[in-house]
Amino acid sequence: MKPLILITNDDGITSKGIGFLVNIMHQIGEVVVVAPDSPQSGMGHAITIHDPLKYYESDIFSELGIKAYQCSGTPADCVKLAKNHILDRLPDLVVSGVNHGSNSSVSILYSGTMSAALEATIEGLPALGFSVCDYSYDAEFDHTKELVSEIAKKVIEKGLPSGTALNVNFPKVSDEPIKGFKYCRQAKGKWQEEFDERTDPSGRRYLWLTGKYVLFDEGNDTDEWAINNNYASVVPVKIDLTDHDYLQKLLSE
Amino acid sequence: MKPLILITNDDGITSKGIGFLVNIMHQIGEVVVVAPDSPQSGMGHAITIHDPLKYYESDIFSELGIKAYQCSGTPADCVKLAKNHILDRLPDLVVSGVNHGSNSSVSILYSGTMSAALEATIEGLPALGFSVCDYSYDAEFDHTKELVSEIAKKVIEKGLPSGTALNVNFPKVSDEPIKGFKYCRQAKGKWQEEFDERTDPSGRRYLWLTGKYVLFDEGNDTDEWAINNNYASVVPVKIDLTDHDYLQKLLSE
Repeated sequence: MKPLILITNDDGITSKGIGFLVNIMHQIGEVVVVAPDSPQSGMGHAITIHDPLKYYESDIFSELGIKAYQCSGTPADCVKLAKNHILDRLPDLVVSGVNHGSNSSVSILYSGTMSAALEATIEGLPALGFSVCDYSYDAEFDHTKELVSEIAKKVIEKGLPSGTALNVNFPKVSDEPIKGFKYCRQAKGKWQEEFDERTDPSGRRYLWLTGKYVLFDEGNDTDEWAINNNYASVVPVKIDLTDHDYLQKLLSE
Repeated sequence: MKPLILITNDDGITSKGIGFLVNIMHQIGEVVVVAPDSPQSGMGHAITIHDPLKYYESDIFSELGIKAYQCSGTPADCVKLAKNHILDRLPDLVVSGVNHGSNSSVSILYSGTMSAALEATIEGLPALGFSVCDYSYDAEFDHTKELVSEIAKKVIEKGLPSGTALNVNFPKVSDEPIKGFKYCRQAKGKWQEEFDERTDPSGRRYLWLTGKYVLFDEGNDTDEWAINNNYASVVPVKIDLTDHDYLQKLLSE
């Protein structure tokens, strides 16, 4: 039996990135797509509690013979819905993306793409999130094709530790091919916000959240370093948020 | 100068839990409240990108002489807005809650309460999230009063490691007083979902997400153990999600 691969994302089922991922995974296993019906970027690990969820079968990938469902919920909802309601067997791999835009460093905490991967990890499933550092609607993905295929096959074959997923970020396309994978840690940084203040036609104030990423980390073992040096960054990430070092210190006081 | 304490939550500015927290923090320092104008439970670490943010001054805590603002965004938005737009100096402490319902174990990943605390951590501010294991609208909080005050004062005095916040969960009120704090790790578990499927008046299917928490962890060093044994659990939690152990293994292969 071919491995079953569940695909989701946070840019929505019609985005270019998920179509790219479907085409690659279709070469590796049996694919089912359960993805949001509209873009969910910045949704973090949101789940839908106070509203009902709706989902419909979609024919968007029917030319490939692939079953696809579009869901009114968040990326994390899609994984819950797929595993507990739609699929009739457990997937061998859950892949999320390819996201239009970076989810490296601290962006992982805001990332719908990675929240879907982490939801799969909570459910005990091996999971990968893919992102390309290109926020545009028609982002270029082809330069990542071999690497996406390679790491997906590797995770199907070797698995991942319980409680751990992989956060994979690719540099934007350039004249040089990507140099390969670099295993690394999450860089320290933050989004430095600015609030663009405006007034609506009724005279009420409103704000647009804008900002730029600021890196605090000079290490050459981080995801930011890898991406800036034309590597694909691979950060193993945990659903256990405990600061075990500080916990030991607190317990010994 | 009295310490400046920023208060937010995810149940919204009118919830009982935030009013309880405001009254305690008012005894400790100068308080400013920036909180969502409506309940945000289950929002995870969502931020508002595609919609404008609005906020208004509220007189909800004016009897205490406390400035309060209600914001159209998520808990993480409230912290960003407060630090970068509303406050004229850096807060000495950010407290989020008290949440109506548990945020222990894996629930931290879905928690708006803790996403506000973690957002403050990203911003380099000492932060605490408080939750009581009682989901009701009129949850009882008074049994936690001394402990909330004690740990807030301790964090103002001693600080926290860079990149780490505290996730504090209290048991529901019972005949016995809470036995005190227990420093512990995040328990392994998950929410076992069920989807309650219904049909709307037009014949379209929709689902409500329901579920119950399942604990996989028999350790007596976890937050779940602490709460079930009438302790307040204190889990130090990191914004660095890197699985450093597995990273070392990958790098040595």
